[in-house]
Amino acid sequence: MAKQDKENMFQKVVSHAKEYGFVFPSSEIYGGLQAVYDYGSNGVELKNNLKKYWWASMVQMHENIVGVDASIFMDPKVWKASGHVDAFNDPLVDNKDSKKRYRADVLIEDLMAKYQIKIEKEVLKAQKRFGDDFDKDQFLVTNPNVLRNQTKIDAIEAEFKTALENEDMEGLKTIIESNNIVCPVSGTCNWTDVRQFNLMFSTELGAVAGDSSKIYLRPETAQGIFVNFLNIMNTSRQRPPFGIAQIGKAFRNEIVARQFIFRMREFEQMEMQFFVQPGTEMKWYELWKERRMKFHHAVGAAENYVFHDHLKTAHYANAAVDIEFKFPFGQKELEGIHSRTDFDLNAHQELSTKKLQYFDHELGKNVVPYVVETSVGLDRLFLSILTGAYTETEENGKSRTFLKFHPGIAPIKAAVFPLTKKDGLPDKALEVMNEIKFDHNVTYEEKDAIGKRYTRQDLIGTPYCITVDHQTLEDNTVTVRERDTMEQFRLPISELKAFMDEKVSLTSLLKQLV
Amino acid sequence: MAKQDKENMFQKVVSHAKEYGFVFPSSEIYGGLQAVYDYGSNGVELKNNLKKYWWASMVQMHENIVGVDASIFMDPKVWKASGHVDAFNDPLVDNKDSKKRYRADVLIEDLMAKYQIKIEKEVLKAQKRFGDDFDKDQFLVTNPNVLRNQTKIDAIEAEFKTALENEDMEGLKTIIESNNIVCPVSGTCNWTDVRQFNLMFSTELGAVAGDSSKIYLRPETAQGIFVNFLNIMNTSRQRPPFGIAQIGKAFRNEIVARQFIFRMREFEQMEMQFFVQPGTEMKWYELWKERRMKFHHAVGAAENYVFHDHLKTAHYANAAVDIEFKFPFGQKELEGIHSRTDFDLNAHQELSTKKLQYFDHELGKNVVPYVVETSVGLDRLFLSILTGAYTETEENGKSRTFLKFHPGIAPIKAAVFPLTKKDGLPDKALEVMNEIKFDHNVTYEEKDAIGKRYTRQDLIGTPYCITVDHQTLEDNTVTVRERDTMEQFRLPISELKAFMDEKVSLTSLLKQLV
Repeated sequence: MAKQDKENMFQKVVSHAKEYGFVFPSSEIYGGLQAVYDYGSNGVELKNNLKKYWWASMVQMHENIVGVDASIFMDPKVWKASGHVDAFNDPLVDNKDSKKRYRADVLIEDLMAKYQIKIEKEVLKAQKRFGDDFDKDQFLVTNPNVLRNQTKIDAIEAEFKTALENEDMEGLKTIIESNNIVCPVSGTCNWTDVRQFNLMFSTELGAVAGDSSKIYLRPETAQGIFVNFLNIMNTSRQRPPFGIAQIGKAFRNEIVARQFIFRMREFEQMEMQFFVQPGTEMKWYELWKERRMKFHHAVGAAENYVFHDHLKTAHYANAAVDIEFKFPFGQKELEGIHSRTDFDLNAHQELSTKKLQYFDHELGKNVVPYVVETSVGLDRLFLSILTGAYTETEENGKSRTFLKFHPGIAPIKAAVFPLTKKDGLPDKALEVMNEIKFDHNVTYEEKDAIGKRYTRQDLIGTPYCITVDHQTLEDNTVTVRERDTMEQFRLPISELKAFMDEKVSLTSLLKQLV
Repeated sequence: MAKQDKENMFQKVVSHAKEYGFVFPSSEIYGGLQAVYDYGSNGVELKNNLKKYWWASMVQMHENIVGVDASIFMDPKVWKASGHVDAFNDPLVDNKDSKKRYRADVLIEDLMAKYQIKIEKEVLKAQKRFGDDFDKDQFLVTNPNVLRNQTKIDAIEAEFKTALENEDMEGLKTIIESNNIVCPVSGTCNWTDVRQFNLMFSTELGAVAGDSSKIYLRPETAQGIFVNFLNIMNTSRQRPPFGIAQIGKAFRNEIVARQFIFRMREFEQMEMQFFVQPGTEMKWYELWKERRMKFHHAVGAAENYVFHDHLKTAHYANAAVDIEFKFPFGQKELEGIHSRTDFDLNAHQELSTKKLQYFDHELGKNVVPYVVETSVGLDRLFLSILTGAYTETEENGKSRTFLKFHPGIAPIKAAVFPLTKKDGLPDKALEVMNEIKFDHNVTYEEKDAIGKRYTRQDLIGTPYCITVDHQTLEDNTVTVRERDTMEQFRLPISELKAFMDEKVSLTSLLKQLV
């Protein structure tokens, strides 16, 4: 798909999400809160189904994984130990004339991107002029305009890298000023110093004088697992290799929050920390890479997922890979799998002076285990599923839009329709509902023509529509219409529950993972 | 049960919750964060099951209820409209000598309680002296000591009520000083003025100069439903009477947070707002009272639940009732059912200038609907279930402790044991696991004698233990042991899944509600 088409597609998905009750801007009647969103009635069902799927695939399917649900509020020392108090920063700079604030690194990256665009324009121009004779590699190293721009990029990049590595805020300011980067609002290069801005939200806990304290909203859920490591290991009678899984909200005061629900200030994570004997971590890392990819493939088209190794790993990791998804706005991180070594447990051990170890019988001593983490953003997973499911088809001159969700995660599993509102069909339809509604989330609709009702269910991704008609009154069969193929077939009411169990249940989806 | 026994029992439940992986103090390795708790591996399963039960009983079982999942961060105007910015306060006062801070109303209530205790002591003394001849009613209106104390209580109470009604902080200070209430730490009556302290946590959103704004962590989930009323009604194609359900975290900076997870600073609510035609609200109010009580009775002993009508309803309600639960520390609010009129929607309509109405065909005009709300604290529900399930028995001189959870909400549904670790029994046990683990959360254990394993499962409330023994290898039957009766019987492996579906599934529990 061309870039423009992809952007149009993304805009369509965002509109669709709002129009059909998946995602709304938060507090919309007051104008909407930036980078915060609410999930509507179909959205919350999809989100809950994704949570259930992840939780079952982790905890229910693994004898050696248990759960935890830690609070959002934690002792501030947790974030001291984890490094977030000191190092979870963005470099910010204000323009003195417009009073607008920017991320210094983004200003510099934008400038480099501008030079890059100039190079690409030169290439395009030359391509047009020379046609098939055009040798791009040759052009890039000979054309004076290209070379001038490339030299600029290289120079900025070198300085930029050094400044970032040394956390040199003055260095960042120098780059901005020496390249005459101006504020898009005031047009001037009149900047304040660059300062580190911590991304954690803080609040005050307690009101008793001398006892009120600054605490943070957790910026990640992982630390809630680490500080509970001993409690969980002992009460669940587990020993490494074993894992702890958690789903929960996290908060980051992002300066540049973008791309719908992809990067929000309030978001939800699904993380599993797997504790292993030091030295065995690469075996588990490989295993979890494989298992996590399988998880995504079971509900999405395989060609949309790509492993992307981190060339430079974070200070706490000795190996790291992202599972990236081909979003309409680019191939972006969906999930991270990290071999975190004993960095976190060691840091908490030092600051808390509590031993976070297990007795390793093979090694014959107490050991701080190593950790392999799998961390997926629930909202990103939601967005990947939604954009992956959005389908437009054109057949016999008729266009159709539908959401091709895997039935196991679809918000509504089936819609039951009486063909008409009379002849006792609605009563019979409610009887059909009662056959399946205790096990599956199903809906009932009696308004409008059947075709219109099919369309409505297509638009929210309901895999099956079940119609009760006059024949039903005679032989107790119903018409089942399948969303993707639009095929219809009759099924005895008595077989409906077994049909649904097989087609739409979480159980069937879980069996795909084995 | 005597008061002392109940207190002991409560302490036992709290210890049990920690020892068996239900609830831990938050950030415990750093000393624990006051009034914040984490849910352990069994706790999170119980909590998730309670969520699933509530959600299914609301959304899945009602064609006219849909869900929403609004963010914790909302536009601050939401809390202006709802009244929380201006009126969600506690009156606080500091002692100038000890620098300790107190709730002024609690200091005054404690003083009245002290006089009340004096009266009760007089009564007890007299009861002992006069025995059967003691006429308590007569005594209360004649004994000079009783009368003196009662006069004091009456005088304070009258002043107190007036001060509260008029939000008269000076009046509260006068009561404290004129009654010479002293600080328990310094022992002096040297107080600051009484000030209103807002219970909402606040933080700063955004970092752009001039664009960063003070926002609040929501103190209740209800407003997330009200501000989404129009979006949800339209996208879900509902019209009153219909409901919107939500589960989510809320935060209150409680000065006096107490009783384990009963009153926390971070907690979770499950709320459903039912929108109805004005004038019909009492019919729905009665219906929801009945349905909500049924919900609790299905998983707990009926005698533990009591309706308690509010004598004085809040400013937004025209009828309100609590479902109280007999906690070991007293009969306390578990759930509230409130007829909230159009207070909230009207307030948001005024401040946002968006119309929050529906067209009522019967009335032939646009109307702001009335709201009947059911609101249960998830953590309180958890605590009610845990204390209700905690059971100690003594039979034939042997004591046994177990958690008598309804199987539909038990954290682990069954434990599968090979009788011994050899003769291929573990492999056979894993085969049995595979029969049921895709549908139910089951666990596997092979360590220690069977009796010890039974005990461990009793302590975490697992309803069934399934043992694979040598006979299993011959005839493919297993021994099923029931938690409450400790009865055992053999069952073919082929019937195990159907047995579990019937006994432990959410489906069975939901059918109890019909």
